[in-house]
Amino acid sequence: MYSFKELQNIANETLKNLNFEKEPLALYTPVKYVLEVGGKRLRPVLTMMSANLYSDNPEIALKEATGLEIFHNFTLLHDDIMDKADLRRNMPTVHKKWNENTAILSGDAMMIVAYGFFIGSKNPRSNDIFSVFNDTALKVCEGQQYDMDFEKLNVVTEEQYLEMIRLKTAVLLAACLKIGALAAGAPIDECDKLYEAGINLGLAFQLQDDYLDVFGNTQTFGKNIGGDIASNKKTYLLIKALALADHDEKMELEKWLSFSGEDLNRKVVAVTEIYKKLGIRELAKKKILDFSEKSKNILNELTVEKNRKKELENLIGQLIDRSF
Amino acid sequence: MYSFKELQNIANETLKNLNFEKEPLALYTPVKYVLEVGGKRLRPVLTMMSANLYSDNPEIALKEATGLEIFHNFTLLHDDIMDKADLRRNMPTVHKKWNENTAILSGDAMMIVAYGFFIGSKNPRSNDIFSVFNDTALKVCEGQQYDMDFEKLNVVTEEQYLEMIRLKTAVLLAACLKIGALAAGAPIDECDKLYEAGINLGLAFQLQDDYLDVFGNTQTFGKNIGGDIASNKKTYLLIKALALADHDEKMELEKWLSFSGEDLNRKVVAVTEIYKKLGIRELAKKKILDFSEKSKNILNELTVEKNRKKELENLIGQLIDRSF
Repeated sequence: MYSFKELQNIANETLKNLNFEKEPLALYTPVKYVLEVGGKRLRPVLTMMSANLYSDNPEIALKEATGLEIFHNFTLLHDDIMDKADLRRNMPTVHKKWNENTAILSGDAMMIVAYGFFIGSKNPRSNDIFSVFNDTALKVCEGQQYDMDFEKLNVVTEEQYLEMIRLKTAVLLAACLKIGALAAGAPIDECDKLYEAGINLGLAFQLQDDYLDVFGNTQTFGKNIGGDIASNKKTYLLIKALALADHDEKMELEKWLSFSGEDLNRKVVAVTEIYKKLGIRELAKKKILDFSEKSKNILNELTVEKNRKKELENLIGQLIDRSF
Repeated sequence: MYSFKELQNIANETLKNLNFEKEPLALYTPVKYVLEVGGKRLRPVLTMMSANLYSDNPEIALKEATGLEIFHNFTLLHDDIMDKADLRRNMPTVHKKWNENTAILSGDAMMIVAYGFFIGSKNPRSNDIFSVFNDTALKVCEGQQYDMDFEKLNVVTEEQYLEMIRLKTAVLLAACLKIGALAAGAPIDECDKLYEAGINLGLAFQLQDDYLDVFGNTQTFGKNIGGDIASNKKTYLLIKALALADHDEKMELEKWLSFSGEDLNRKVVAVTEIYKKLGIRELAKKKILDFSEKSKNILNELTVEKNRKKELENLIGQLIDRSF
């Protein structure tokens, strides 16, 4: 079985060999930049790891894996414009380094390039694979829209929030696992199970992201800590805190939510303290663990022999313990 | 043979029946709005008209035709953000009616929806068709990039300009004709000829757009007349005027290009006068005619019997005489 590292190398090598040094430079240079900034390559690794469950050659899903990673990076590029984010993986975002028009158009081009990896496959299931990818792509947009809608809502329930991150984050990880298995010729019901495992992994993964935004550290996480608190983002942590706070704690939380001072650090420290006092840290950790357990349980049900699943199982575990 | 009107009705009916009344409303309502604002439906009509050359049932290419129209409208949506355009077809653009984030994300969703129409076709050539669509989509982005690049250049040659509009406008019309013929099972060399006919038609069409922007009228054209002049857009007209002007005329043109006054109408009237004096109006008309003749000549070479080509021939003629 291929390890995470080996599959990550294959993904990186493939992305590095794509030729984006072409005209018009203003269109393709940002694409190259975004793909070179790096990242965990989690999506192509998951795709190939899933393929590797059913085939000794994980590269049977390499084209799809590459398309999925490029699509993911396209969503980051456009989301960063919408979220007015300055940094991504400790590097300036495209709309900051260039400008907004460049970010819009280079993003569009990236999406088109991503789709290109789903054409011309000789795989007998190429239509199903393409269909999963296309449905997923639309769901990711829906998730981003709910995320933006929530900014304008006074109250977001836990249920609404989980549905939003299911769409925005989890379905793409789920699609990676399903598409990898489809490409490797796995039985359809196993492909569907892998999709469900991916949904649970994705929910755990995003909650972990929310968690690290408060309790992680900038160096390893690659984003400014407390960004979500500073911008009043309605994360799982804030939603639970508002739900569990007593009258006084709620007043204090709301005071900080309407804080208009310049010293955002004070706000971040204060809200983090409230989270700790309310036990949100443990609550979030427990929720993350619940979802990752569900994911592992589904993985257990697969008919694939046990030792073939080790790498994927380890990866799920690592994603939950990650600090990156 | 189906008439323009009949095919336009089929396209309109199909677009009307797509369901965009779904959650999240903030994502899909702008998509619905854009597709309902209308337009000539030139791309789906061309696709089906081309299919109708080789098949009695033009709807054999209806899915592709629909995808191509939705893709076209996606490009308009994103281009309008980049060009900061307030009006499209006499209606407020999406980023004006809603906001920029909505326009970015709804545009992304539209592109994904467009791709969806290329999945699951039983056509034995579906891979070729998808490939033409994908290549074309990327070229359209390249064209838009060159268009934006040209804003920052002091000099744009006629050759560079024609290459830009080939990418930005002509390749999509060409793809429509080629895809329609591919879907209808036409011989490959005829599909390629139709592509070439489409390129020439597209060049004529875009030059006609430049022409109407100066010499058309707002009511029928649906955009403000003189917009290109007001914004110093390096159209075919301006490029030729700068190339043909003598010393004094060039000085006057450049005076207006650096005009920073408020009365843009004065500028539009003055530059239009210079165009007229330099014979740019006739020159543009001649160039448009040249390209449309080339397009018709290629059409003539097709092995299809003469009376089957009538509708497409008429359409090319009308597009050149259009005032809309």
